[in-house]
Amino acid sequence: MGEFDLIARYFTRPVRRAALGVGDDCALLAPAPGMQLAVSSDMLVEGRHFFADVDPEALGHKALAVNLSDLAACGARPLAFTLALALPRIDEPWLAGFARGLLALADAHGCELIGGDTTAGPLNICITIFGEVPTGQALLRSGARAGEDIWVSGTVGDARLALDALRGHGPATALPPALLAAARQRLERPTPRVALGLRLLGVASSALDVSDGLLGDLGHILRASGVGACIDLSETTDLIAASAFQESDSGLFCSDYLQQCTLAGGDDYELVFTAPPAHRPAVLAAARASDTPVTRIGVVQSQAGLRLMDAEGRPVERRYASFDHFA
Amino acid sequence: MGEFDLIARYFTRPVRRAALGVGDDCALLAPAPGMQLAVSSDMLVEGRHFFADVDPEALGHKALAVNLSDLAACGARPLAFTLALALPRIDEPWLAGFARGLLALADAHGCELIGGDTTAGPLNICITIFGEVPTGQALLRSGARAGEDIWVSGTVGDARLALDALRGHGPATALPPALLAAARQRLERPTPRVALGLRLLGVASSALDVSDGLLGDLGHILRASGVGACIDLSETTDLIAASAFQESDSGLFCSDYLQQCTLAGGDDYELVFTAPPAHRPAVLAAARASDTPVTRIGVVQSQAGLRLMDAEGRPVERRYASFDHFA
Repeated sequence: MGEFDLIARYFTRPVRRAALGVGDDCALLAPAPGMQLAVSSDMLVEGRHFFADVDPEALGHKALAVNLSDLAACGARPLAFTLALALPRIDEPWLAGFARGLLALADAHGCELIGGDTTAGPLNICITIFGEVPTGQALLRSGARAGEDIWVSGTVGDARLALDALRGHGPATALPPALLAAARQRLERPTPRVALGLRLLGVASSALDVSDGLLGDLGHILRASGVGACIDLSETTDLIAASAFQESDSGLFCSDYLQQCTLAGGDDYELVFTAPPAHRPAVLAAARASDTPVTRIGVVQSQAGLRLMDAEGRPVERRYASFDHFA
Repeated sequence: MGEFDLIARYFTRPVRRAALGVGDDCALLAPAPGMQLAVSSDMLVEGRHFFADVDPEALGHKALAVNLSDLAACGARPLAFTLALALPRIDEPWLAGFARGLLALADAHGCELIGGDTTAGPLNICITIFGEVPTGQALLRSGARAGEDIWVSGTVGDARLALDALRGHGPATALPPALLAAARQRLERPTPRVALGLRLLGVASSALDVSDGLLGDLGHILRASGVGACIDLSETTDLIAASAFQESDSGLFCSDYLQQCTLAGGDDYELVFTAPPAHRPAVLAAARASDTPVTRIGVVQSQAGLRLMDAEGRPVERRYASFDHFA
């Protein structure tokens, strides 16, 4: 099978929202009147973002999920994407699985594959995604204001826990099988919070998705907005779904480690966002309507920097490094 | 230097045409009223699209040039692009050179860098480019009709000649230094035919850019349009800039080889397009206005398939394989 057969067999599908899809020099696309196009690119590399033996269907899912998550963080509705793929060889069962996972998630979000590129090379998956957002209303990192609440969606830290377990690192190796399976699902099949992002338009003042670690990513909002924050650590304890682990026989006394996973783990693809206290009912309504739990974990402050406190309001001195691909 | 410093130092620039550039979860972009967005992605892999020791400035130029060429083939005006980059390590002189070549060509075309991704991994450059084209007017592969002329821009075959010379393959190793230098320039710093593409809107009936080989790429137009073609080989002899080579001492009797480079070489990023005979004056005017030579090499026919003929109109039996990344 050659390059063109590969594209025809696995990656050519009719388009409905785009004017022209796979098969010409360019695809053609236009946002609806009054809408801007939100654009994001993510590149996934073997050994860095996924293990060589990962289930290809899960990989197809994740490759698109991390891009959908960027749209969610802007409050944009998914529209279309391009896929550029470097493959060491043509492995049809692998490609079929990858395409199945990718396109199932694409269909679930009405997001069309409109073009891309294939080449031979070390396995690399680069997706550029397009969404629509009403002009001027996108959720940006720069909108947080002092006095606002800081919220996070879903569960945070489980992806890192699974990664550590699969790598044989630290206390995670003692994770009971049921908790590992659930955590691994979070690592390999993240759920992009598209529905929540759409409902946060006009409600949240800023947002981003947690890919490198909760505190590190929150720092991007704080710097872009010229503000600081205080996080109540007692509110973050149950953010990790595997919090039951610390009470299990094998996980005794690992609460510091779980907190590390939650605050600096990365790869969760939840949304962290800010909103005025007056919008609390609207935030909770958005969460209910999108079937996405949210937790209020802190407050935006005018003083720059990120401060941590315990349940009694006492300052906690601890540093959490977020993920850097070159660190 | 970490990931965020790298992006800030080399790849963050103010935007004028996009509503939001590098630094948030998504960039924001909208085509002007009455325009569609033309979108294309190309991925370049070390050892496949370029040599490991290629000048990084030339590589930055080429990575964007091949994408601009896709816009040219649709008649789209460049607007913006995203850059996803996997780097084995942070090599500042390399990055500075790459960014210089990339951004110089971007500036020359008013094409803004609006976002992307960086990660550690085997060197891989993936660009997704955006252009504007009046709604419904993009040059497609499917518009060729029997009786129309087939045209090609500029020179074709020199990139392959340079590639063969650099790899030590065949007669190309005897290429005189001046011709090699010129051919290498074509391989490493291709000129995207954006200005010609824009002027062919309403003039040409179909177009694509020559990346895998002239005849193979022309085949895409023929199949998409449901037609065939006859190519006059005597018109293609001088398409290769290095045609003087066959008359040099060292290049004697290599005309078959040069024809192979011209017809099946690839990597030239010229435009091949069709237009009705009545549009010949308009094609020539577009060529003059964009300072781009064009050559008429054949005619579209209703009978499927691609036929070659010599100067006397006699059929020539020869097959040229075009480039396939997995063949």
